[in-house]
Amino acid sequence: MQKIEKIVIIGAGSVACNLAVAFYNKGFTILQVLSRTLGNAKMLAESVDASFSDKYSEIDLNADLYIIAVKDVAIPELISKLSLNHKLVVHTSGTVAMDILINSTDNYGVFYPLQTFSKSEIIDFTHIPLCIEANTPENEASLIQLAKEISGNVQVITSGQRKILHISAVFASNFSSYMYLIAEKILTDNQLSFDMLKPLILRTAEKVQKQLPADTITGPARRNDISVIEEHENFLAANPDLLEIYHVISENIQKQFYPTKK
Amino acid sequence: MQKIEKIVIIGAGSVACNLAVAFYNKGFTILQVLSRTLGNAKMLAESVDASFSDKYSEIDLNADLYIIAVKDVAIPELISKLSLNHKLVVHTSGTVAMDILINSTDNYGVFYPLQTFSKSEIIDFTHIPLCIEANTPENEASLIQLAKEISGNVQVITSGQRKILHISAVFASNFSSYMYLIAEKILTDNQLSFDMLKPLILRTAEKVQKQLPADTITGPARRNDISVIEEHENFLAANPDLLEIYHVISENIQKQFYPTKK
Repeated sequence: MQKIEKIVIIGAGSVACNLAVAFYNKGFTILQVLSRTLGNAKMLAESVDASFSDKYSEIDLNADLYIIAVKDVAIPELISKLSLNHKLVVHTSGTVAMDILINSTDNYGVFYPLQTFSKSEIIDFTHIPLCIEANTPENEASLIQLAKEISGNVQVITSGQRKILHISAVFASNFSSYMYLIAEKILTDNQLSFDMLKPLILRTAEKVQKQLPADTITGPARRNDISVIEEHENFLAANPDLLEIYHVISENIQKQFYPTKK
Repeated sequence: MQKIEKIVIIGAGSVACNLAVAFYNKGFTILQVLSRTLGNAKMLAESVDASFSDKYSEIDLNADLYIIAVKDVAIPELISKLSLNHKLVVHTSGTVAMDILINSTDNYGVFYPLQTFSKSEIIDFTHIPLCIEANTPENEASLIQLAKEISGNVQVITSGQRKILHISAVFASNFSSYMYLIAEKILTDNQLSFDMLKPLILRTAEKVQKQLPADTITGPARRNDISVIEEHENFLAANPDLLEIYHVISENIQKQFYPTKK
């Protein structure tokens, strides 16, 4: 098992920034940040005392681990340009299969943090699930050891399981964010402040930390309160997109909790 | 302006329980809990040193305020049975207009806490928006004074505004809860633990406490990553309901962020 000490980060987006800072803060050496956008590479590199470049040909070959944290669509082209031979290389994608790395190196894996990141707010990894996959037991052991340095929640997850986790994360995170966005639109369109909803949003997320989602849902569809649903749908009729979303989700909640009524 | 000291709670569900305990903890006297289900009335009454009854004819007429915290659909029948003359009466509904109380008393209003409640976990009201409406300036002043005893976020809100707040709360809370439920179903159907998503869910809600929802959304639809969306939709094809929800929301996110592409 190889002990990982020196890391090259490829990418300078929100995942790259959060991972680089997490490892840097734990005493790892970030040798280099590579990004197609030099300014982004520089900004991240300076915060973790690394060198930086926008040319893959200038990649530093002295690292123990190369972390590819770029958009899914950019991975194939990127790895076609990298030749890292026997180096350990991981990507951080929820969707891309591990074996995409097979032609770049003979030591590879996945290091997928199940979380939503921003560049503007670097977060602590202690409770973030880190999903690990590797092409050999030795590489798996190295990546697990590394992951445990920053998180108390390290899981070995296959590419197939990771895809399922990612789909469920789209519902739990991306789609709930979009529900917040719709709520904010309805409020601001009516000269009301989104601030009014913030304690409710936080509490709704806190509830499912301890209870099953099915036990936390409230509201008109959960109560099968047809007259309130109709009133809401009448209100939303001027915006067919919102009406459709309201209707589809309410109908599904009713089906879930009152299966015999439909 | 009437100073409110003694309160009768009508209802013993989650809103009734949370309000009764909040006032009790601040030194108010809960005179009585009335509920059609005697056991529920008793359980709540015992926790706030109140008497209890399941008969509206036994209502204690010595209170300064009567809080109706029952399901929306139960309000009309309930108020047809109550004759409280000049007593101050409020309901706690997000949807029902204030004037439904007009025939029960000549002092009435609304006391709507914009939050999702459980009986199993009584919560602190300090940051919960309390939406107040009243039929006279005097009653409004009494209710504002009362509300400020338990919350730092008291707002005067018309029946029309309250309806809009309620619709937006359905999206922000009920529908995001349903997104959590779908995520949990996908995971458990595939022998993965919902625990994996909990930090992500909490973080997603935390992000919009400081940033606009539009700035927090991530994921395939936000990136307009058609190939990942297609892959997810293929995976969900076996469950037409989930597929429809995934499709409708993803399409709307794409429309929102890439309006010229459609």
